[in-house]
Formats: sequence, C-alpha cells, structure tokens
Amino acid sequence: MTAANVVPEWLSRRAQHSPQTPALLFGGSTWTFAELDAAAWNVAGKLAALGARDGARIALLASAGPDYVALVHGVPRAGCILVPLNTRLAPDEIAWQLKDAGASLLVYDAGSAEKARAALAQVPGVTPVSLAGPEPGAVAWTGVSPEPLAGRDTIALDSVHSIIYTSGTTGRPKGAMITFGNHFWSAAGTWMHLGARPDDRWLAAMPLFHVGGMAILIRSAIAGVPVILHPRFDPAAANRAIDEDGATIVSVVATMLDRMIAERGDEPYPGTLRAVLLGGGPAPPALVARAEALGVPILPTYGLTETASQVACMAPGEALGKPGAAGKPLFPARIRIVRDGRPAAPGEIGEIAVAGPNVTPGYWNRPEATAAALRDGWLHTGDLGYLDAEGYLYVADRREDLIISGGENIYPAEVEAALAAHPAVAEAAVVGAPDDHWGQVPVAYIATRPGCAVSDEELLAFLRRRLAGYKIPRRIVRREELPKGPSGKILRRSLREGLADEPAAQPAEGPSSEGRAAGEREQV
Amino acid sequence: MTAANVVPEWLSRRAQHSPQTPALLFGGSTWTFAELDAAAWNVAGKLAALGARDGARIALLASAGPDYVALVHGVPRAGCILVPLNTRLAPDEIAWQLKDAGASLLVYDAGSAEKARAALAQVPGVTPVSLAGPEPGAVAWTGVSPEPLAGRDTIALDSVHSIIYTSGTTGRPKGAMITFGNHFWSAAGTWMHLGARPDDRWLAAMPLFHVGGMAILIRSAIAGVPVILHPRFDPAAANRAIDEDGATIVSVVATMLDRMIAERGDEPYPGTLRAVLLGGGPAPPALVARAEALGVPILPTYGLTETASQVACMAPGEALGKPGAAGKPLFPARIRIVRDGRPAAPGEIGEIAVAGPNVTPGYWNRPEATAAALRDGWLHTGDLGYLDAEGYLYVADRREDLIISGGENIYPAEVEAALAAHPAVAEAAVVGAPDDHWGQVPVAYIATRPGCAVSDEELLAFLRRRLAGYKIPRRIVRREELPKGPSGKILRRSLREGLADEPAAQPAEGPSSEGRAAGEREQV
Repeated sequence: MTAANVVPEWLSRRAQHSPQTPALLFGGSTWTFAELDAAAWNVAGKLAALGARDGARIALLASAGPDYVALVHGVPRAGCILVPLNTRLAPDEIAWQLKDAGASLLVYDAGSAEKARAALAQVPGVTPVSLAGPEPGAVAWTGVSPEPLAGRDTIALDSVHSIIYTSGTTGRPKGAMITFGNHFWSAAGTWMHLGARPDDRWLAAMPLFHVGGMAILIRSAIAGVPVILHPRFDPAAANRAIDEDGATIVSVVATMLDRMIAERGDEPYPGTLRAVLLGGGPAPPALVARAEALGVPILPTYGLTETASQVACMAPGEALGKPGAAGKPLFPARIRIVRDGRPAAPGEIGEIAVAGPNVTPGYWNRPEATAAALRDGWLHTGDLGYLDAEGYLYVADRREDLIISGGENIYPAEVEAALAAHPAVAEAAVVGAPDDHWGQVPVAYIATRPGCAVSDEELLAFLRRRLAGYKIPRRIVRREELPKGPSGKILRRSLREGLADEPAAQPAEGPSSEGRAAGEREQV
Repeated sequence: MTAANVVPEWLSRRAQHSPQTPALLFGGSTWTFAELDAAAWNVAGKLAALGARDGARIALLASAGPDYVALVHGVPRAGCILVPLNTRLAPDEIAWQLKDAGASLLVYDAGSAEKARAALAQVPGVTPVSLAGPEPGAVAWTGVSPEPLAGRDTIALDSVHSIIYTSGTTGRPKGAMITFGNHFWSAAGTWMHLGARPDDRWLAAMPLFHVGGMAILIRSAIAGVPVILHPRFDPAAANRAIDEDGATIVSVVATMLDRMIAERGDEPYPGTLRAVLLGGGPAPPALVARAEALGVPILPTYGLTETASQVACMAPGEALGKPGAAGKPLFPARIRIVRDGRPAAPGEIGEIAVAGPNVTPGYWNRPEATAAALRDGWLHTGDLGYLDAEGYLYVADRREDLIISGGENIYPAEVEAALAAHPAVAEAAVVGAPDDHWGQVPVAYIATRPGCAVSDEELLAFLRRRLAGYKIPRRIVRREELPKGPSGKILRRSLREGLADEPAAQPAEGPSSEGRAAGEREQV
C-alpha cells in the first residue's frame, strides 16, 4: 500500500458532496446519501462493538433491502471483508462457504434464519447475528450499541473489499477476492461507457449477493446515482419503476426482460429509459428485436465475478445490427482470445482472457486455482469466444458444460457430486436442456448401483437438502450405464445431443419466487 | 509495475469505442477520435524513426493546435516523456528547462522558432525539430517517415506521462512528474463531479502547456467528449463557441471571464452552457454575481500542477452562496490543513496539503525538493487556506508572496534574481500590485549600488532577455535601501502594504496577445 493507492472511501466522499441526493429508493421510502452514509458508519460501529477485527470475514445471508445496502458499505468500512451468500443455497452449501471463508460472523435476516441455523449447526465458531430481532443463541443486530468513531474514511485500493463465491468446472466453489480497486475500475469502466447524467436512476432488481447486483450499489456511490432497489424481481414492479419512478438504467438477464415485456403487452417504453444492460448469457436475437421495437435500448454485455462485473458492453443502438455480440472491452479492461496458448486471429474461437485493474488478484486460500486462472496478469475465464475484426467480443459458449438457468450458473460437477453422494447412485451426469422460459434447465442422467433402488422423489429430496433449488434437476433420466470416452470420462456432450429424443422436461421445481437474475458469470 | 497497474492507452481505447465521435474542433475543421488516434500513432512512429528511446524527454514549444494535441497523446504513446514549455518564457528560461529535463528533442512551431533557436544555442545535444517545415540545422517533422507499428497501446499507471515545470518560492522552476495514473485519477475526479453527457463539448481556450489545458485533452479522450480548441484566448471567439458551437463546459480564469462578459454586453448565455470552471486564483464575488446573472453556471475550483489539475471544485449553483469557497475535494483527493505540524480545526488557516492518486510522485531529479514537498504521501502546497465545518476549501492566500497575474504565476524570487543579475542593482524585491484587469501585476523595488545608475528602460530591456513578458515588472520603484527584518531578510510584506501610497501602476507591457490563462497553480 502506497500513498498513490489510497483514496477516500466512496460512500463517505459521495455523502460529503451530495448529502441530500437520493441514494436508495426502496418500498416507497427514500434514503439520501447522507442517511446511507450514517447507516454505514452505524454498521462499522456495531462491528467494532462485536469485536470484529481487521480483515475478518463477515458473511451476509439476506434479501435485498436497506440493511443489505448498509452492510455492503459498512462491512468494508469497518476494515472487514464482506462475504455475500446466495440465499438460494442449501444449508450444506452455506456451511461449506462459511468454513472456506473462515467467517467470524454470519449476519442473516428473517427469511434466511432457518437456513442460517441449519448451516451454523455444522460450523462451530461462527457468531450468528440476526437482523430481524432477538432470537435465542444469536446476537440481535438492533441491540448492538455501535462503538463511536469506528471505521475508516479512506481505503487502500489493493485491499480486499469482498469475497464472492463462484463455482468452477470441478470441485467446490471458490471465493474470488474483489479489491476496492477492482470495484472502482469496474465502476469507472461502466460510467466511461454510459456517461452519468443528473437524472439517472439505476433499477436493481437482481440479487445483491451476485457481483452484478453489488456492482450497482458501488457505481451508485461513486457517481452519485440513485438506486431503485426491489426486494425481488417482479416484472410489473420493474415496469412501474421505469414508467413511474424514472429508472433510466436497468440491469436484467434475458428471462427478466422477457417477463417484463410480456407483462406490459405492446406498450412502448418511455424515452427516459436509456440503457438496459442485458447479461447473464447470450442475448436472444428475437428478444432483442422485440424489445428494441418497444423502445428498449438493449446493451448486451459480458462480465464475470472475477472482473467485478462488466468487462465488455455494446453501445446503444448496436445490438440489432450485431446479433450475438457482447460489445467491446470497457475502458480499463483488455480482452484477448487464446487458442493453443497463442493469441487467436480475429474471428477465431478460443478461450476468453481478460486483464486489467478490475481483475481479481485471486481466489481466497486457493493458490493453485489462482495460479491456474491468472497467468501473467491474464485471467483465463474458461469461456469460449472470439473477437471480430472490429474488436467486438462474441461469447460462443460459456465455460465448458456450464448451464445458465435464468441467469444463475449451474456447474454440472457440483450437482453430479451431490447425486453421487446418494448410496444408490453409481454414476451421474448433469446437462442443460433448452427451456423456453429459463434458457436452460438442468437434467440428470444416472445409473444406479446393482441391487439398489431410489425413486425420483427420494433422490430429489436428497438433493434439496444439499443444493440450491435452481440447481435441482428438472428431470432424472435413468440409464444402465452412462456413455464414456476412452479414458473412462463420462461424455456429457453425447448425453446433451441425445436430449432432443427424450420426452420434454417437466419442472421438478416451480419458478422461484425470487425470480432468477444474473449469476456469477454475468454481465452487469 | 504489476498487472493491476496496466490499462489500455486512453486515446486508442477511445478510438476503438467512438471512432466517429468528434475529438477536436479547431479553426473550422474537425478531427474524429479515429483521426486523432491515427495522428498519435504517426507521432509515435516518427519518434521511433528519430531514435527516441524509452523514457526520453521530448520538449514541446508550440501554440495550441492539432499538432500539439497529437503530440500530447503521441509522445507518451511512444514511451517518451512529454515536456511542454511555456511559449511566453524567455530563451534563457527555455534553455534552463531543456537542460534540467535532459531533453533529447525540442519540437517547436513557426511562432516559437526564434526563441527555440536562441535557447538551443545554449544547450548542445538537443535535436531541433521544426513542425513548420524545412529549416537549416533542424529536423523537419513533416519529412520524417514514421516507423510502422511503433508505440504502445497499453500504459503502466505509475510511469511518467509528462514533466510540467512549476516555480517555487525560491530558486529555479522544478519539473513535476505527472504519471498516467495522476492524469487518469484527475480526469476521473472531474467526471465524477460533473458527469459526462452525450452533448458535452469542452472549450479549451487556455494554454495547453499548463496542466489545466493538458488535462482537458486527457479528460476528453477518457470520456469521449469533444474539445473545441482555440489557438489563443479571444473573448468574442469564446462567446461564439458557447453560442454557436455548443460548448457546454468552459475552463477560464477570472480575467478571461471578465473579458467574455464585457464583449457580450448584457446578453444572457444559453442554457446549454452547464459549467464554467473558474480557476487560476480566487473568484471575485462581483464577477461571480455578474456572470450568474447572465446565466453562467460558475464553478470556482482549485488545483495545482502537482495534482494534475483540479483537486477541489464547487457544485453548480453553490458559488453565490459561498463567496470565496473553492469547493470540496474531488473524488480521489484528500485535503487537509496543516498548522504547526498538526491538522487544523475547521475554520483555522494553515497550509493546504493534498493526498491521493492524482498527486505527483515528485520533481524530476530533485530528491530534496520532493522530500520537502511530499511527506507521508501528502503534498504540502505552500498555499494557505482553511476548510469550513462543511468541508469546503477556502484558499486564503496562494503560496507566500506568489503573484497571480491573469492566471499566470509569478514567483518574486525569480524576478528578483534576474534584477540582481544587473551590475547596478544592489537590492531588489518584487511584489504584486492590485490591478483591475489582471488581478495583480508585478512591481519591482530596487536600490542601486553606490555610484551606479541604470534607467528604467535599460533595466526592463535587461529583464526582457531573461524573463517571460508577463513576469516583467509594470513599474520600478527606487529606494535608498529596502526594508529588512532582524535577520536581514527583505520585508516584501511592508513594501506591499506601502504600495497604496505609490502612484498608480502603468503597464510596462501591453496585454499579452495570447491572453493570460490558468497558470501552474491553477484550477481546471
């Protein structure tokens, strides 16, 4: 940390400049930047009172709301590292992430209390902190008296702001360390691309535990742009935010946009809507065309947890003319395509690699995974794509075998490991089946052990205890044996290709009440 | 240099995103970002052809125009360091800066050719490069064939972009090293403060050799905002740029604004004009009131060469209510007031200190001056001021004894040393006299040696060979002896206080044809 690396903490600086500007609109109430800043100081004071030391990991399991926003700003201000947890995870998954992060506190709200308790039962040494009020065995957040003058109003750009878990092709999720500098440069890239206007308001209707949601909050503080926050995605509410509350910028995944348009009928959107960032997977050309016809300025974009959100983005008016493109790299980021260890030619598909000050310094406590992903300053994303001659990025295929369902990422290996944990399952493979609404849904292929039997219902119940709902296979297909390559590896590809011959997938789970939104590999 | 410190070179990135957006409007012609980018590659190729090595200092003595802009971007792109020289300097001053910087090339235009030749005669080893065309003994810039593929499209934020000379209270000017990161963070601070809008155009009518002018060019490339460039300040042309060419942001010093308003009569300015950054010294309240009455949104601001331009700035609408304030610190900068080595209380006057990633790492080849100015990451500016309880900066007094004349800084010590070099002068002191038009003008007090005589005309001619025109005293007052303190130091303060009793100052020089504009200690 050198002097050139230290800047004022963004929210406190913003509150100094624009104290009376609205920072947050939520459920009919408004918080100014001065009020949000005071709330963040309050968080820092409470963490100090709870004895949270510098660099302590504070896990957060809660739905979007003012408390969440205050914690996003207040935890790093206290010198602690924020670990946002996906509220859709199963207790086992939460427990695993708490252990991996070495969390000292788990802050949770009423809606996640049951999951929190189930997870905490597996991880001794983590202090439960309930946002909702007094609860046996937990610290009541509202009852903690904040220590005065705790927290800091400057930040070192190279220190870690948050650890955000992201899965990989193999094994358990990894915690990407996102520094203050990563967040700053990401925000700078977005604002250099979009410009910030005095009447801007950013609608955040996607989960705040993903980098895409968190990045909206940080961009807001840096540029002084109000956030309209929805507790969950609701298409009618999102449309009202645009029509009545003046949302000018909206972050969505394709499923969300689809539902918004359907809810609205054919009514055009107002001219005040100037940018709809469409991430979380490829932008379906038909959807782009329908949306643009209704006056929705679609900006397809590509981003990752490891890059603190957006790294490429289309400009307004470009989407229709370049179907499938995800834009040019944003101001601080460089993108190259690597093929057989060499830079690919324009138009040639290879692995997408990203460099820049917005790229994570690595994964928490994973030197090997870090070394594998980050080589000479380039993050090797595992995603396949190409750059055209003009420099537009096309994402040909997300990380091998990755299933993207309503913007959430599902890694087959994780679901397969959960299936294989059942004593009756000999072999398991999970692939993505096309789905009109979610884009893709997971389908499981299994072979049972000789002499063992397990019903679909039993197996799904077994999985639900271990996995988030959106990861639960929509269908279970049974085989005597799964197809394998010469090395004995199961050939997911051949299963995927055979999917068309199977009967149509039936939802094993109804649509989530929260609405899916941009996942780890997302684009806003 | 780490990977997190490397970003795309801003103009090449901008040209990739907004190739057809106008970058530069000058004399009825327009250059797009793609054209300006090509011009900068051309500069880099020519420098490579001339054998300029990495880190070579390339001095530039020219008036504002497209060549200048291409060099501002092309020299650093070639890996060289740009050393912009004040075209108003005397040949002796230019020679001194060339020597101090260890310049390998001096690039000059027709208007500065005579001065350049006179300076080069004193500094062997500097290659003269003429922008105007073939000239005996000089390389003709137009005749150099650029080396293909020379230059870089990425930059390390901690490497030096430019060396900009700034004077001090004692001795010779010092070259402040401004890194790419200093420029970036300064630009980020400005845009976070003003926001960037699609219709923005920034009028640059101030010298490009000062940091205030250069910063406009860099902000423009970073945000994709067109610059309307004037070769020199002309009040009618500046008004036309606002009325007819759509200038939305304008950088001025008080003298410029005063002349613009006078030229216009009482006609209000159009609503498209959204920010007039007023730097180069305190904002006279009467001028602010007159300007605001005509619809000019005045934003008083404070900045320094060492901070790569602006560090504090008022918000629109604030200037009238807080006369004398220079605003709150911009996003990346921290400001504190130091008094007797301790932070001052709100309202208490002390030395203004600045920290942040926009602060210079130091002065070129001046470790002692660097150590004196930069302590624990804080730049001690020498300026006096205070912060009020709300965090607004008030600049009570620029650097001790500094004279600001039409936005140019005059350091008495430098003029006094030139006076003392005349054999007839025994003692000399220079102070600032109030002036309705320039704000201040320099006045010299001298005592001649017994038995020696020198006329005003002789002495002024002697000075003109050594000093820039704006530094030449407007009047010479003769004394038997100058007032001194107990230690024998001349008391400039008592001379300044006695000025009111002297007959009114008569200009020794007419107003500069270039119009004065924001100097080293400037604010835009």
